[in-house]
Amino acid sequence: MAKLRVGVLASGRGSNLQSLIDQSLSGRIDAEIVLVAGNKADAFALERARQAGIATCVIDHRKFASREAFDTAMVAALREAGVELVVLAGFMRLLSSVFIDAFPQRIMNIHPSLLPAFPGLDVQRKALEYGARFSGCTVHFVDGGLDTGPIIIQSVVPILENDNEESLSARILAQEHLIYPRAVQLFAEGRLRVEGRRVRVLPPADPAEAVLFNPAVD
Amino acid sequence: MAKLRVGVLASGRGSNLQSLIDQSLSGRIDAEIVLVAGNKADAFALERARQAGIATCVIDHRKFASREAFDTAMVAALREAGVELVVLAGFMRLLSSVFIDAFPQRIMNIHPSLLPAFPGLDVQRKALEYGARFSGCTVHFVDGGLDTGPIIIQSVVPILENDNEESLSARILAQEHLIYPRAVQLFAEGRLRVEGRRVRVLPPADPAEAVLFNPAVD
Repeated sequence: MAKLRVGVLASGRGSNLQSLIDQSLSGRIDAEIVLVAGNKADAFALERARQAGIATCVIDHRKFASREAFDTAMVAALREAGVELVVLAGFMRLLSSVFIDAFPQRIMNIHPSLLPAFPGLDVQRKALEYGARFSGCTVHFVDGGLDTGPIIIQSVVPILENDNEESLSARILAQEHLIYPRAVQLFAEGRLRVEGRRVRVLPPADPAEAVLFNPAVD
Repeated sequence: MAKLRVGVLASGRGSNLQSLIDQSLSGRIDAEIVLVAGNKADAFALERARQAGIATCVIDHRKFASREAFDTAMVAALREAGVELVVLAGFMRLLSSVFIDAFPQRIMNIHPSLLPAFPGLDVQRKALEYGARFSGCTVHFVDGGLDTGPIIIQSVVPILENDNEESLSARILAQEHLIYPRAVQLFAEGRLRVEGRRVRVLPPADPAEAVLFNPAVD
């Protein structure tokens, strides 16, 4: 089976990128990361990619007159690499419709809250300040809104009495590293069907594939 | 120890009222329901109260010129009964500041979602339509907003592939019946401290009390 060609966009330290690299290299997901693109040359995510022998590409958004021009350049780089699925891993630029329309329902993002609660930035702090008892993380397809796209997988963690932003973020991040590769694998297996804003997860085509996640994750 | 005097406001069938009655009569919570008040004479909740020998009171909101006048009458009835904690159990009237100020941080509500996700009405349907993977229920203190008050307890349930509004509501309701009496008991034990909008749960004063929930619930 040909592996899914994945392009990752990253601006930061790239811990989610690392978990995707690890699972890809170990063959636990049927995906190959063919390009890691970023807008900041010094992002540690790019260094992780280079260390894994993955092609990188830096496109400096400050050199473009508009968001659309920047997105057009990003799309061209991803298409050039034959990318079938775009994965956002701490990519800190909003995508315009130029980008989103170029990869319809082929862009995933991960967000460190149980959406629709706490969209946007600094969400672990917001969850703590709100006094929520649970938070978690969400992998979703990207649409034109801010963290509003159809939800693929969510994971829940408790918020504990003595949590601070750091301890809660770490607990959520551990779950992110589990569910993001899982979402990519479901996509690679062709098992995700978007109906309205609900994402249906089909059973595996070959039951033997489920052995990779035995006991089954879903 | 004197039992906490609880007044329940209910407009509907009162299944949460029933779980409070059951736990109160069996002595699992240190609370006595001294009054069940409603605005609809034919609410089944009132019948449940009568069957349990609990005083009831019907105050028809249509006979009052304003929300404030109605709330003043409700407050008078609750005070007359010596109520220390007001518990909303499917009470379908918004409370004015007249009511809220009369029982500061002494009014609880339960809501069938993981707040702050899905406030308002028809929330199980909204969670399904949104494509959320988890929902749950929330017991919170009532403030002036719609389902915005400080959160006391939350419980999480999964949303399953073939759920409909009915199946999801039933799964959530089973959790409501567990956490609402638990929240009342924490209040009765004096263990809830509201700090900003976070609710701190203090350890039990007498460790032996924890035996009631062994293994500990919190």
